[in-house]
Amino acid sequence: MDILVKDLDYALDPDLRIYRGIDILIRREDGGVKLYRGRNLLEKFNLDRRDLKVIDGDKKCAIPGLSNNHTHIPMTLLRGIADDMILQNWLREKIWPNEEKLTGEDVYYGALLGCLEMLRFGVTSFNDMYFFPEEIVRATKEVGIKGAIGYPVIDFGTPQYKDLDKLLINCEKFIRRYIGEERIKPVVAPHAPYTCSKDTYLYCKEVSQEYNVPMHTHLSETRYEVVEMENRMGMRPVEYLESIGVLGENLIAAHCVWVTKEEVKKLARYGVKVVHCPGSNMKLASGGVMPLVEMLREGVPLSLGTDGPASNNNLDILEEMKICSLLHKAHRWDPRVGDVDTVLGMAFNSEVIGFENKDIVLLDLKSPHLRPVHSIKSNIVYSANGNDVDTVIVDGEVLLENRKFTRIDERDLRTLYSKIDRIVEKFE
Amino acid sequence: MDILVKDLDYALDPDLRIYRGIDILIRREDGGVKLYRGRNLLEKFNLDRRDLKVIDGDKKCAIPGLSNNHTHIPMTLLRGIADDMILQNWLREKIWPNEEKLTGEDVYYGALLGCLEMLRFGVTSFNDMYFFPEEIVRATKEVGIKGAIGYPVIDFGTPQYKDLDKLLINCEKFIRRYIGEERIKPVVAPHAPYTCSKDTYLYCKEVSQEYNVPMHTHLSETRYEVVEMENRMGMRPVEYLESIGVLGENLIAAHCVWVTKEEVKKLARYGVKVVHCPGSNMKLASGGVMPLVEMLREGVPLSLGTDGPASNNNLDILEEMKICSLLHKAHRWDPRVGDVDTVLGMAFNSEVIGFENKDIVLLDLKSPHLRPVHSIKSNIVYSANGNDVDTVIVDGEVLLENRKFTRIDERDLRTLYSKIDRIVEKFE
Repeated sequence: MDILVKDLDYALDPDLRIYRGIDILIRREDGGVKLYRGRNLLEKFNLDRRDLKVIDGDKKCAIPGLSNNHTHIPMTLLRGIADDMILQNWLREKIWPNEEKLTGEDVYYGALLGCLEMLRFGVTSFNDMYFFPEEIVRATKEVGIKGAIGYPVIDFGTPQYKDLDKLLINCEKFIRRYIGEERIKPVVAPHAPYTCSKDTYLYCKEVSQEYNVPMHTHLSETRYEVVEMENRMGMRPVEYLESIGVLGENLIAAHCVWVTKEEVKKLARYGVKVVHCPGSNMKLASGGVMPLVEMLREGVPLSLGTDGPASNNNLDILEEMKICSLLHKAHRWDPRVGDVDTVLGMAFNSEVIGFENKDIVLLDLKSPHLRPVHSIKSNIVYSANGNDVDTVIVDGEVLLENRKFTRIDERDLRTLYSKIDRIVEKFE
Repeated sequence: MDILVKDLDYALDPDLRIYRGIDILIRREDGGVKLYRGRNLLEKFNLDRRDLKVIDGDKKCAIPGLSNNHTHIPMTLLRGIADDMILQNWLREKIWPNEEKLTGEDVYYGALLGCLEMLRFGVTSFNDMYFFPEEIVRATKEVGIKGAIGYPVIDFGTPQYKDLDKLLINCEKFIRRYIGEERIKPVVAPHAPYTCSKDTYLYCKEVSQEYNVPMHTHLSETRYEVVEMENRMGMRPVEYLESIGVLGENLIAAHCVWVTKEEVKKLARYGVKVVHCPGSNMKLASGGVMPLVEMLREGVPLSLGTDGPASNNNLDILEEMKICSLLHKAHRWDPRVGDVDTVLGMAFNSEVIGFENKDIVLLDLKSPHLRPVHSIKSNIVYSANGNDVDTVIVDGEVLLENRKFTRIDERDLRTLYSKIDRIVEKFE
């Protein structure tokens, strides 16, 4: 059934144009979804209300779907298990030992929780990297949002496959199995230059090219990683990936905190898609700040990610926009940096992970903190948070309405929470 | 009527102790409110359910009231009117000209909106500084939260009184009028060392001492201010206030971003209450970072403030906690800084503005982003936001229940929003 969002107070389209007092018609046409924005669409299209789902847009603002372009959603299971710790201790003592205990079923439930959290917060597409990715696909399909699901490749193996060869074989199987699905894009995900050999990257690149799917990797997240790479290879991480021929338009690189201006130019020249994770970088005290101004100047395609919920500790892209803006203003001593258009553009950018943005998220403007509206963009970036999302429409399907999930009910949610409480009992 | 919050999943007291599976009894005793925490309080106190308001604590966490210790709440009216601008331009072109147009009634409505926003977000006490403070008192009393309301003194006058002498006379009148009120504390608020002369500060100090009320001032917010003061006085702002005898336990100093280690020691020695406003400092790109580690080391009494909603742009102390933690971790390259205990302690610190914290805020733990609960403190600081507040009990009175205001209804809220939309029409 087509959907008409009627009499919206405000709307923002993916090009950041602002509309007032319009309707949005969401139609299924030629096997796809088409959006129409304008006044009095009921009359203009001569629509019959009985064939329509009509949603009241009064005191609401429609925005495109938010996109979380670097995350590890099953890590909801580890949310808050340890914070305020030195990175290496945090990983060695708390994260890795517990990840070892995760089964495919655990990952499925963790991913389900993560997808529901994102849906609740208006995040309609995401780019993930975690083991048991087929379980993440399963959870994503159940919730109904759009997932670019990375098959994680790492030389010392994952808790799913300890053996690199098995990982590589299954990686290709995974890509073949899920290619062509509607709301799922399989992705090859070599972990990072310090955990994957040249051969591993080249194999991943081959698979990526053969099936025309993106590669998703961590890049220059910490200073340690850069120093280690310089000592071992005599090159910085971006230079190294260039030298082995891995930089390209199909590469999605998360973090890129510790990059030089020369490396920024390389990222731009090759069209690498950089995902900025300000909240995680700050929380883990990665040190340094991703060079936002330089990336924008060189034209690097930028978007936002929360990183995994163990290092953030949520999947709220509305919050991430504000953190991004504040970080760069403070870092540059310049309030003009990280302006609303820049961060909104990053937050709506699902194209770089392979999804056209035809999703509609309605924000409820009836809370005191969103009044008055001098600038709707400002209220979205600086005043709102994920809980202000009221309705989410993905590919023409209403998945959240009046803050309630449409596909699952309160009882399902309680069951899921109990299940998760049982799973995490085994953690140290 | 006494209130029993029954079977809470979690509770945190002002000393940051964690309780599980307890009840909280909120009793009126000897003209005040007393809190009891423990298991099975219905039986232990032999209570009759008919004499009680019982609130279900299932899947909820009780925390003390949050305290917003530096703000200008009527600036809700200017929320989002301009962002991403250089501070001086922002003030001269957008803030000051529009503040000139504000009437007492406008300030009342702006304050009402601000108080409702804070109540919705679990902020039960605040420390304000804005003109027409009697209108802010009126709004605060209507909403029912607790306000330390500053009478703003500034040498070139305010939009309320252009004349300094009139300001000073009315300041004392204001203090006399509101002293002894239950949820209101009148405060003397000399604006800042660069806008108030020595004589003004000394007059304010006299009033503060005579009536035993706090003084609230801005201090070392920007680098510009420090340089200007050094050029004019040969001293830095904290040194200057020491030299004129204004530092002391009754002084609440907002910001203190640009202070030396020596100045931190002075602040500690005199027992000055420093209010940290990380979100505003970052958004306005004040440059520098308040020396949190040094302040803690020296024992400066610290708390949090959002600053005015035009420079934040909300009054959400739950969000401010996370921003605070992230800022200092990133600044120090140390994830151990700004740990959960530190920021929770700052957020609950209403004592420094003169209010004992006997308020109870219930957070709803039923949202996906607050599951599972490995560490309730972590989930509060890093995962939650203001909208997760479900119930607010101030001085034994339920002011918010199931996310609804108890004293005002939907219609009142709509009327208020319309009123505010009309007020802001005159802005440039």
